[in-house]
Amino acid sequence: MKIAVDAMGGDYAPAVVIQAVAEALKEIPDVQIVLVGHLEKISYYLEKEKLKESDRLSFVHAEQVVEMNEPSTNAIRSKRHSSITVCAELVAKGLADGIVSAGHTGAAVAATKVKLRMVKGVDRPAIATAMPAIGGKFVLVDAGANTDCTPLNLAQFAVMGELYSKLNFGIENPKIGLLSVGDEDVKGNALTKEAFKILSRMPINFIGNVEGHDLFNRTADVVVCDGFCGNVVLKSAESIASAISYWLKEALMKNAIRKTGAILAQDAFRELKAISNYEEVGGAPLLGINGVCIIGHGASSPKAVKSAIRVADTFAKNALPSKISDRLFECGV
Amino acid sequence: MKIAVDAMGGDYAPAVVIQAVAEALKEIPDVQIVLVGHLEKISYYLEKEKLKESDRLSFVHAEQVVEMNEPSTNAIRSKRHSSITVCAELVAKGLADGIVSAGHTGAAVAATKVKLRMVKGVDRPAIATAMPAIGGKFVLVDAGANTDCTPLNLAQFAVMGELYSKLNFGIENPKIGLLSVGDEDVKGNALTKEAFKILSRMPINFIGNVEGHDLFNRTADVVVCDGFCGNVVLKSAESIASAISYWLKEALMKNAIRKTGAILAQDAFRELKAISNYEEVGGAPLLGINGVCIIGHGASSPKAVKSAIRVADTFAKNALPSKISDRLFECGV
Repeated sequence: MKIAVDAMGGDYAPAVVIQAVAEALKEIPDVQIVLVGHLEKISYYLEKEKLKESDRLSFVHAEQVVEMNEPSTNAIRSKRHSSITVCAELVAKGLADGIVSAGHTGAAVAATKVKLRMVKGVDRPAIATAMPAIGGKFVLVDAGANTDCTPLNLAQFAVMGELYSKLNFGIENPKIGLLSVGDEDVKGNALTKEAFKILSRMPINFIGNVEGHDLFNRTADVVVCDGFCGNVVLKSAESIASAISYWLKEALMKNAIRKTGAILAQDAFRELKAISNYEEVGGAPLLGINGVCIIGHGASSPKAVKSAIRVADTFAKNALPSKISDRLFECGV
Repeated sequence: MKIAVDAMGGDYAPAVVIQAVAEALKEIPDVQIVLVGHLEKISYYLEKEKLKESDRLSFVHAEQVVEMNEPSTNAIRSKRHSSITVCAELVAKGLADGIVSAGHTGAAVAATKVKLRMVKGVDRPAIATAMPAIGGKFVLVDAGANTDCTPLNLAQFAVMGELYSKLNFGIENPKIGLLSVGDEDVKGNALTKEAFKILSRMPINFIGNVEGHDLFNRTADVVVCDGFCGNVVLKSAESIASAISYWLKEALMKNAIRKTGAILAQDAFRELKAISNYEEVGGAPLLGINGVCIIGHGASSPKAVKSAIRVADTFAKNALPSKISDRLFECGV
């Protein structure tokens, strides 16, 4: 499989991306990479990593980058030569099998929607993010591709989340929950109350509403929500986790006894950190587009980008888009 | 001040509530309490705590309770003699100055809206919850009173949050942020994009969008959002904090060295726990209704209910409702 990697995407791009590509070529057997970016600007990093054109690595120039503070639509309007748009074109033309980008999420959504089109039957794409919970990971979908959703969008997200959960975590019949404000059927907002009715009729393992309290107990394997709420949940969970880590460090450094305790228990803290480490997860797939696109965390490390390349490689080998289309038809949404 | 306490509200009611009342009478000078509940059902607990009618404690019978799985509107329809509705009636008749309930939030909202009416100029009430962050607490408003909101509702929540932040935390000119999916002006959903425009025009210290990442860094003193998102954030933050605590314990118990370390550092863990302890915060005020109503966490301990009684007492002494009305007028919303 040939993966188009957006060299310019991410808070620490291109350095981190190029380091990741070097590692991926060593560690992931047979993967081929097309590195897309401003060739002049990345040449220094290519030399540093001793990366040259080969049968497994090629380069494609992209003049522009969609910056984080720009509207998403610039990817398909004023910046049609941006790295993410060029990545999408490569897949559209059959010159690559998947995309990895840690850049502007909205731009990736816009570029792939236009260049690759949607899977037949899908109205809106969704980002599926695997999150740590007690007893395993759960999938949050949509984690930020669509800020305004209809009940039918949520029903389609459920199908896409179900397939992702099966494919990525090998769960036979994933439990699907609807994110809401109480576990009773009567609770929710206008959107979730309607979505609840549709989900109840579908031939999926729908377990009803799940509320914030249930999330990290892995009550559900797949949690469905609109992209606004999903993004807020995802980012606030990261924010509270890092606040807790800050408070813990501060409390442990207060005196010599605690410091000694902390040194003795340091492996435990390392294990705790590893649980919530998104580096291992390796990015979130954008589901519903006619192709493979893995979106990396903006603050991705080389390890995280490398994991994302690995995930893109796996996804490209499985024909997920056509599976989504078939399953939507079965579910009548 | 005389506080009507809902004896039947909360996961561990009436036991926990009555224990809290006993402690409050000892610890909060001059507070008077009207305990509202099914007198037969609570008599055992009253005896246990040696609570008798006095000039500081009286009892009012309420035949019914709105259970957690019932629709909120039952408080004002099929269960007009429920404890929360009777509490609201007492305030409406001038027989009490405030309410404390750890029961069904929606029922408390419905009962107080109907019995006490709204503050002049407020369209919807909001729950303001104080949450821990690095460098102090921030106020999340609305934390769950309204699942569907208009942009104008959010603007009014900003005003109520501002006044709460001033009154409760003594912050002179609170920084107000709008919860969204990116800090750029262009990002958000249809609701927040409209609310952004209104907030920008108001004579408040509006700092723009804040996203999930910023929440627990206390970028803003007041974070405004719809009650669906707010409730999800509040509860998922609790959920992830308890998952982290679970993982930490598990990792610390893995071998003798780590266990020793954990014992030496135990005061640090205790301090960490205290930071996120909602028991100290003592419930969240329901703002925008014409009176004082403090909503306790469903899983409230006696200490949490006691803190809520203390907060109700303080609020009743400050004429918050009329201040809200004046400030809304100043802000043109």
